[in-house]
Order: sequence, then C-alpha cells, then structure tokens
Amino acid sequence: MKHQISVVTLGISDLALSRRFYTDGFGWTPVFENEEIIFWQMNGFVLGTFKKDSLEEDMSRKAGPSPSAYSLAHNVASQAEVEPLMDRLIQAGGTLMRKADAPVHGGFRGYVADPDGHAWEIAHNPAWPIDEEGHVTFGV
Amino acid sequence: MKHQISVVTLGISDLALSRRFYTDGFGWTPVFENEEIIFWQMNGFVLGTFKKDSLEEDMSRKAGPSPSAYSLAHNVASQAEVEPLMDRLIQAGGTLMRKADAPVHGGFRGYVADPDGHAWEIAHNPAWPIDEEGHVTFGV
Repeated sequence: MKHQISVVTLGISDLALSRRFYTDGFGWTPVFENEEIIFWQMNGFVLGTFKKDSLEEDMSRKAGPSPSAYSLAHNVASQAEVEPLMDRLIQAGGTLMRKADAPVHGGFRGYVADPDGHAWEIAHNPAWPIDEEGHVTFGV
Repeated sequence: MKHQISVVTLGISDLALSRRFYTDGFGWTPVFENEEIIFWQMNGFVLGTFKKDSLEEDMSRKAGPSPSAYSLAHNVASQAEVEPLMDRLIQAGGTLMRKADAPVHGGFRGYVADPDGHAWEIAHNPAWPIDEEGHVTFGV
C-alpha cells in the first residue's frame, strides 16, 4: 500500500477568522474556497479547513468540545525564523501554547493554536531535509 | 511562505495496538520506532504516532477526552478498493464510523477510526490526481 495521506481536514467554526490565520499568519493562498470549505494545496497533499458541522456530518461523528491529541508541524529553514512566524500567527488570531525552546531531540520549536484550537508546531529541524517543492524527508 | 506541513502527529495510548492498525491495516512500514514514537515516511511529509502523554507535554496542552473535529484521508485508485481497505482497517483494530457511500461532491468514501479515535476517510476521488510518488494535487 502507498504511504499516502491525501487530505488533512480541520473542522472550523468561523471561516473568515480561520482564513485570516492561514493567509495572514502563514502567508498561504487558497486553491479553492466556497462558503463552507477552503482547500490549500500543500506539499504532496491537500489541507482543508471545513465548517465543523459539515465535517461532523460527513464523518458521522460529533466532535468533542476541546482539542484532542494531535498536532501539525510546519518546519522552517532556520532557528531564527521560528519565533517571527509564531508572532505572525498570533497576530493573525492564533494563541500561544508553548514558547519556542530547544527539545531534547534537537532543533528548536514552539506551538501556536489556530482560532479553532488546532495545534501547530513551528519548528526548525536541521535533520529533516525539505526540498524545493516542500517535500519533507525523515532523517536522524 | 511555503505551503508546507512537515509532520502530522497523532497522540496514541498503546503503541502496539496503534502500530498494528497502520502496519496490518494500511500495510505501511515504519521508518523509525522507539518505545514512545513511530515515524512513517509519507508523500512529502512525515506521520508520527506518539504516546499521548509525551505529545501533551511537548505541546504544553492536555488533550480533551474525545476526538475533536479533524480527519485524515487516504485516497485509493478505484471505488472498488474503498470497502476492502476499510474492512482491513477494522480487522486491524479500527472502528467503523461511516459506511462507504457516494457524497454529493463526487467519488466514494467511508470513515474508520484508528484505535485512538483518529478519523480516517478512505476515499476514491477521481478528480484529484495522485502521482507515482503518492503526491496528491487538488482538482475540480
């Protein structure tokens, strides 16, 4: 079987608030948007920010009230880029979860939640190469 | 800014139970594993299945008791592959969330939760091409 994830979908409550976090914070541009979903073309897959009620209906499962245990990471090319990006994300409606510091496994990282509580790790990880198209390869 | 997610990390409670879902269900092979995390090289990024307590400590946030609103999708090449893969995932410890059917936006899909409640959509979406390396491109 292919090691493949096609879409990461995040349930959101307010499309405009969420959109601002991703466009103004990360500086990303939607590839498609309507009144209930925005798609973002990522590095080999698609990110969807989808009205929470619609996602719950599609999944046939109601979501819990608080974020569960998962996170998404965006890696940057140098340690110096971590905190400025975290600051931009917070200015764009995000919430600080953990100030950036150096984990024992190396690199440098902090966490910011998006307006719906989805956790984003902003990291510099020198062991994991990122190619020109943004494809990330595991390294040690 | 690059449209890039480096890692998707799922918090898990039992490493062996979770591992079985991904190896026997999806047929994937870890690229790294120790007693608290397994990494899987995906299509342009890395999937991590990480002991929940360790992820919570890293994020500086406790997780809610029930899954919140997000999902991951694995797309297959034909409609005929959707249900057999869902069956394999259930045999490997997953739980059926929604039987496969045809959504209004086209294609064919169902949902299975992994042993920790993380939602996986198994889908055939003929509008979204997948290249030889598993990279998925948004299409309409």
